[in-house]
Amino acid sequence: MVELLKSELICDNLTVNQRGHLCLAGWDTVDLAKKYGTPLYLYDEGHIRARARLYQQAAKEAFGKNTRVLYASKAACFKALLEVMKEENMGIDVVSSGEIATAIAAGFPLERAYFHSNNKTDEDVRFAIENGIGAFVVDNAEELYAIEREAAKQGITQKVLLRLTPGIDPHTYAAVATGQVDSKFGSAIETGQAEEITRLAISPAFPHIHLAGFHCHVGSQVFEADVFLKAVDIMLAFIAHIQSECGYEIEELDLGGGYGVRYTEADPALSIAENIKEVGKCAKERARALGITLPTILLEPGRSMVADAGMTLYTVGTVKRITGYKNYVSVDGGMTDNPRYALYRSAYTLLPADNMKAEREMRASVVGRCCESGDILQENVPLPDSISRGNILACLTTGAYNYSMAMNYNRIPRPAVVFLTEKDTRLVVKRETLSDLLRLDT
Amino acid sequence: MVELLKSELICDNLTVNQRGHLCLAGWDTVDLAKKYGTPLYLYDEGHIRARARLYQQAAKEAFGKNTRVLYASKAACFKALLEVMKEENMGIDVVSSGEIATAIAAGFPLERAYFHSNNKTDEDVRFAIENGIGAFVVDNAEELYAIEREAAKQGITQKVLLRLTPGIDPHTYAAVATGQVDSKFGSAIETGQAEEITRLAISPAFPHIHLAGFHCHVGSQVFEADVFLKAVDIMLAFIAHIQSECGYEIEELDLGGGYGVRYTEADPALSIAENIKEVGKCAKERARALGITLPTILLEPGRSMVADAGMTLYTVGTVKRITGYKNYVSVDGGMTDNPRYALYRSAYTLLPADNMKAEREMRASVVGRCCESGDILQENVPLPDSISRGNILACLTTGAYNYSMAMNYNRIPRPAVVFLTEKDTRLVVKRETLSDLLRLDT
Repeated sequence: MVELLKSELICDNLTVNQRGHLCLAGWDTVDLAKKYGTPLYLYDEGHIRARARLYQQAAKEAFGKNTRVLYASKAACFKALLEVMKEENMGIDVVSSGEIATAIAAGFPLERAYFHSNNKTDEDVRFAIENGIGAFVVDNAEELYAIEREAAKQGITQKVLLRLTPGIDPHTYAAVATGQVDSKFGSAIETGQAEEITRLAISPAFPHIHLAGFHCHVGSQVFEADVFLKAVDIMLAFIAHIQSECGYEIEELDLGGGYGVRYTEADPALSIAENIKEVGKCAKERARALGITLPTILLEPGRSMVADAGMTLYTVGTVKRITGYKNYVSVDGGMTDNPRYALYRSAYTLLPADNMKAEREMRASVVGRCCESGDILQENVPLPDSISRGNILACLTTGAYNYSMAMNYNRIPRPAVVFLTEKDTRLVVKRETLSDLLRLDT
Repeated sequence: MVELLKSELICDNLTVNQRGHLCLAGWDTVDLAKKYGTPLYLYDEGHIRARARLYQQAAKEAFGKNTRVLYASKAACFKALLEVMKEENMGIDVVSSGEIATAIAAGFPLERAYFHSNNKTDEDVRFAIENGIGAFVVDNAEELYAIEREAAKQGITQKVLLRLTPGIDPHTYAAVATGQVDSKFGSAIETGQAEEITRLAISPAFPHIHLAGFHCHVGSQVFEADVFLKAVDIMLAFIAHIQSECGYEIEELDLGGGYGVRYTEADPALSIAENIKEVGKCAKERARALGITLPTILLEPGRSMVADAGMTLYTVGTVKRITGYKNYVSVDGGMTDNPRYALYRSAYTLLPADNMKAEREMRASVVGRCCESGDILQENVPLPDSISRGNILACLTTGAYNYSMAMNYNRIPRPAVVFLTEKDTRLVVKRETLSDLLRLDT
């Protein structure tokens, strides 16, 4: 049993204390549930800071001092988190005016922000330029025109990168695979459309645009190093091609994000530093072979920056044992705070936070409180046979794509978010109230 | 082409005006998009009222004057909609304290509200009783105890129904199938657990609980009448069994909801009145054969009350044609306002609202603006070849499970909701602003 326990503590910020309670960053989760209520999102702030430093250190060693690591805000975007990114000297990528507004509220210096999205409205473009966005990652030609118009109006030269699709199948689930040719994102190298938009961007038609580089993103939850190596290969070859064909030197290459995290013990433990080192080695060799200067390399980790810093706590409600079928354990949250099982059948590790030393002889579907059969957090979860109303369950690795995807389905308010440091715990996003739900009703 | 047009106007509140614009309830959708902005949820208020009257009329004819039709609020729950339900003398079913709070804000008489949910917290139970909820639809024994405790404390006798699972496979998608034995909802008749909880509820252990009836819900988007007939069969047999075994007469039988609506022209047009008539006939015959008085029958339509009253308008952004692959048309909304394709691959009809008379020779994936490959509204949509930035697209039949499931993923604000009547149009839920997104950040 002790062995089982150890292997399930899939991140090094997880421990079990003498009361048999699960701890995150040294804090007793049962105490936190009592103090802040459930459902509750927790973040180990120290873990996020350590990850930011690890990424930046590894990137500098691999790619040189000009490299920049951009946190992909869409993984989790709220003021306190972007304040941490600011303090850690990270860049960010943003994908909407809402994320830009959050960065502004956090006092984040927007010159370190890169604006993604397959579909920026004219209003988004105006808002971003007005607030001094560092760069646009331009998805398509229409966007180039929109930026040129607005930059001209505001009298500036706007730095842009072009989003390209290198045509790589990242061996991952279709909904999180973005590097292949058939994608709503970017312009494909394979079809000639990447070269076309590059030639367009550097043409005299865009006097208020400075093309600084290219961006690619091969996918999400990627564990195979070869995916990134292949992306480097294809992107550098394309950069060399543009240099020889158009005489235009690219300054920045943004390799996107995508490193996988451990949702369960079945996921491999990936060394980010080792992986980045390998990418750096490959990039330098490849640039040398192509006879080009290695551009400034940018990385955009999202999930791997915050996922395993996070955890969600739930209180158990109904426990149902259907004779001859299966068991259901309902919690006071569900797809409303974590729709990833409903959307992708994502795996998660669920643990009995207040009873970690018990044998787990029962298997149950852990389900949410929505009036919806698909409101499932996880199937076939090993739990203590004694589990009952009032017990606390923890769902691990919920720091990414949980708070950011939360919804009010069934008019269920969204949970609070609490940051944990060595010194203290603090509420960073307040729990939604019933009157919050009604505030936009006329 | 005119034929194609006609068949695609899948609900009788849809027309095309002389400008070639799609109209809902007689209102030009292009004008509405201009007036209120996009993305925008529209509701034909008259259609909802007509549906409420149709349901109540049909139910009275089929089951007698005591019958009650409860609108299943989870399909779409905001103040203006529950005000309409109040005015139309409907009952409602609610599934959370948030829905109860919305009903209170709408001035809805809570004695006509039935409280569902597989997992009511003690706090939910207290809140509901305090506000005079008409009935609980009790999911499980733990809930019975929670209600007994709270009713005793508040010194009342609480009316309850028990949710039972009749063991019917409704031939529908697993995530929306709720009548089978293996379900997080209710107690199964087949396993004996339904009888067990019935005996418990009427036992002396629950002096503050009055068991009034049973509830079942066989599934969603059901077109086959036999599913409901089978439910009536099983439920009445169980009621007769309880009467003979326990000497206890059940007053109410709630048959739930589940009638299908037309998302595309491939869905059959269902006559709700005919179906209810058939259920009524079957129920009367069956009660007679069983030698029991037919209980008061309740119906709980959700989707079929509001889905085809609704429509979502989008503005087209990026139009991308990937040589040799496919076309992508991006809109200014997506899975954030309608996650149903992402969740269930749900079919929808999308129409070029500002260009209805054009030939539609292009096929495109209509995708959202989220930085997520799975952010798709629909695949393979026929659209005019001329479609470009600024055009208006309408997604039909979005009145149910769209606004209610909307989220702020990518920090995208949720759309406004507008009601259309014969006389005027009015904003009933305000568009979320960027500062709304930040209001809970500390």
